[in-house]
Amino acid sequence: MTRGSGSATYDVLGIGNAIVDVLSHCEDAFLEAEGLVKGSMNLIEVAQSTSLYERMGPAVEISGGAAANSMVGAASFGSRVAYIGKIRDDQLGEVFAHDIRAAGVHFDTPIATDGPPTARSLILVTPDAHRTMSTYLGAAVELGPEDIDTDMVADCAITYLEGYLWDKPRAKDAFRVAMAAAHGAGRRISLTLSDSFCVERHLEEFRGLVDNEVDLLFANEEEIFALTETRDLSAAVGAVRGRAEIVVITRSEHGSMVVTADETVEVAAAPVERLVDTTGAGDLYAAGFLHGLSHDRPLADCAALGSLAASEVISHLGARPQVDLAALAEVAV
Amino acid sequence: MTRGSGSATYDVLGIGNAIVDVLSHCEDAFLEAEGLVKGSMNLIEVAQSTSLYERMGPAVEISGGAAANSMVGAASFGSRVAYIGKIRDDQLGEVFAHDIRAAGVHFDTPIATDGPPTARSLILVTPDAHRTMSTYLGAAVELGPEDIDTDMVADCAITYLEGYLWDKPRAKDAFRVAMAAAHGAGRRISLTLSDSFCVERHLEEFRGLVDNEVDLLFANEEEIFALTETRDLSAAVGAVRGRAEIVVITRSEHGSMVVTADETVEVAAAPVERLVDTTGAGDLYAAGFLHGLSHDRPLADCAALGSLAASEVISHLGARPQVDLAALAEVAV
Repeated sequence: MTRGSGSATYDVLGIGNAIVDVLSHCEDAFLEAEGLVKGSMNLIEVAQSTSLYERMGPAVEISGGAAANSMVGAASFGSRVAYIGKIRDDQLGEVFAHDIRAAGVHFDTPIATDGPPTARSLILVTPDAHRTMSTYLGAAVELGPEDIDTDMVADCAITYLEGYLWDKPRAKDAFRVAMAAAHGAGRRISLTLSDSFCVERHLEEFRGLVDNEVDLLFANEEEIFALTETRDLSAAVGAVRGRAEIVVITRSEHGSMVVTADETVEVAAAPVERLVDTTGAGDLYAAGFLHGLSHDRPLADCAALGSLAASEVISHLGARPQVDLAALAEVAV
Repeated sequence: MTRGSGSATYDVLGIGNAIVDVLSHCEDAFLEAEGLVKGSMNLIEVAQSTSLYERMGPAVEISGGAAANSMVGAASFGSRVAYIGKIRDDQLGEVFAHDIRAAGVHFDTPIATDGPPTARSLILVTPDAHRTMSTYLGAAVELGPEDIDTDMVADCAITYLEGYLWDKPRAKDAFRVAMAAAHGAGRRISLTLSDSFCVERHLEEFRGLVDNEVDLLFANEEEIFALTETRDLSAAVGAVRGRAEIVVITRSEHGSMVVTADETVEVAAAPVERLVDTTGAGDLYAAGFLHGLSHDRPLADCAALGSLAASEVISHLGARPQVDLAALAEVAV
C-alpha cells in the first residue's frame, strides 16, 4: 500500500531499545574464547553482562540503540525528529537522555523509577573494524503500549521501528499500537529487520508484517536472505519486490539497492578514508534514507544520503555522527 | 633529599580524584557564554554540573582523573602499578573501576555506599584541540586518611600525588599520611601541580611541600610560573632548582626540561600526526617519566618516554592510551 507524508509536525519518529553502548577493542581470539559470532547481536542477561564486562578491556561509553542512532542521524541532516524508548532513572539513563536531546531529537518517554537498569550493549570491535554486540536490555524491555504517544505517531510522516523490539511481548504490543496509529492517520511505517538472528527468531511474524504493515523495509543481505530463505540475491529481490512499497537492501562496500514494485535503483557505497568501527553503519544509512524520503527526494538521492551517513559513522568509534550531516550532504550529494 | 627505589612490589602508586570524563566538542563562543577560561580546570557543584551538562552537546564517557590516567599509562609501559581513589557504588563508579582494572592497575580502595555520586568532569574540547574542564568532585572528595593502605605505600618505589587533592581537607590528610608512609620506608614522593589556579589557591602550602616533601615535581609552564611568581622561564628554573630532587617542566610543543641540582636536560616533544584533544597530555607525560625513573632509566630517556606517551594521547579523544605503550616505546625510544 502507498501512503503519503502530508503535513506533519515530525518527519520521522523512531521507536526502539534505548541503549548505552560500551565499546572496547579486542582480538578475534577473545570472541572465540567467549563463544561469540563476529558481527552478531546477542541478547544476554545481567549475570552474563557482568561477567563479560569483567573480562573486557578498557571501554568507552557512547549512547546507542539502533533506532536512536538513526534518529540522531536524521536530526543531523535537518529532519524534525522524535524518539520513543525506555530508560531508567540512573546514570546511564541520564547519559542516553542527554545525548539524544542534545542532538535535537524530541524525547519524553516516561522514565522507569524502578525495575532493571538502563540497557547497555557490550560492543567488541575487532581489528577488521567489525563489531560484535552482547546486549542486556534492562529497562528497554519495559517499553509497553502505554508509552506510545499515538497523537505524536499520527502527526509524524514516517514511524520507524526496529525489529529488535519484536523480542519482547510488551514492546511488540507497543509496536502494534504505533502501527495502527500511523496507518490510521495515513502515515508510513518503516521497519528495519535489525539482525539475521532476530529475523530467524520471528520469521513468520516478520513476513506477515512485511506483507501487511510495512511501507518501507530496511535489511542488509544476511537479513533479507533470512527473510526469504535463499542465499541468492536476485532470488531474494524477486521474493520481496512489491511486498512492501519500498524495500532497501544494504550491501556494505557493495552499496545498496532500492526495490519497488516496478524498479530497482542501485547506488554505490560512499568512499571511506579509514574504516574504524562498523557499529551503526545500517542505522546511519537508514537515517539518510528516512531524511531524504520524508523530504520527497528521489529514491536514488535517499540511498546516496544513506551511504554518506554510513560512511561517516564507520570512520570513527561509536554509532552516532561526529559531524553535521546536513553540511556534509551539501558538499557531497 | 634523595631516596632510592630499592626492591618494591609496585613501581608506582597514584593517589588522586577518581573521575569519569564526559567529553564533548564545542565552539569557543560556548566557553565564552559559559564564562569558562579555555584550558582551565574549574571545580563546580552538582547544580552547576547539571545545568552545564544540559547545555552541552552530545558527549562520550571515558574514565579519567589525572593520577588515574597516569597510572593506566605507566601500566601500559609495563610498570607494576596501583591506584587509590574514591568512587561510589553507582554506574559511573563501576565504569571507573572496570577501566582501571582492565588496564592492569591494582585498585581496591573501599567504595562509598552512600553520599555523593562518582565524580565527573565535563570536558569541552574546542576546535583547536584545547580542553576546558568543569569538575564535580562528588564521591572523590570523600577520600580520607583511612583509605590509604600505608603498607602498600611503603612497598612502592614512587608514590604519585595530584595537587588537586589539596583542595579538600580530608584528602589533604590522606596525602600527608601517604607522604609519611613513603618517606618512612625510604621511598620517593612525586607531586604534580595539576593546574595553575590550583597552585594559586594553595601557594604557600605547595611551596612548603616542594621544599620538604617532594622528590619529583611535575609542572607545566603556567604552573611553575604560578609557583615561582615569575613569568620568565629561566628565572622560574633558577627558583626551583634543587628544591626537589628532580623538577620536570612540560612545555607542550616546545618539549620538556628536567631540572636537578646540577643539570638541566632538555628533550624535544614527540611528533604528533593529528592533534585531536589535549586532555591527558600532562598525565601521560608523567606516566612515561615515572615508568622510566622507576626502571632506573637516564633522565633524558624518562623525558622521551613521557613525550611519547603524551603525543599518543593527544592524537585521539580521551585521556587514556589507545595503544600498548610498551610496544610503542620499543619502536620509538
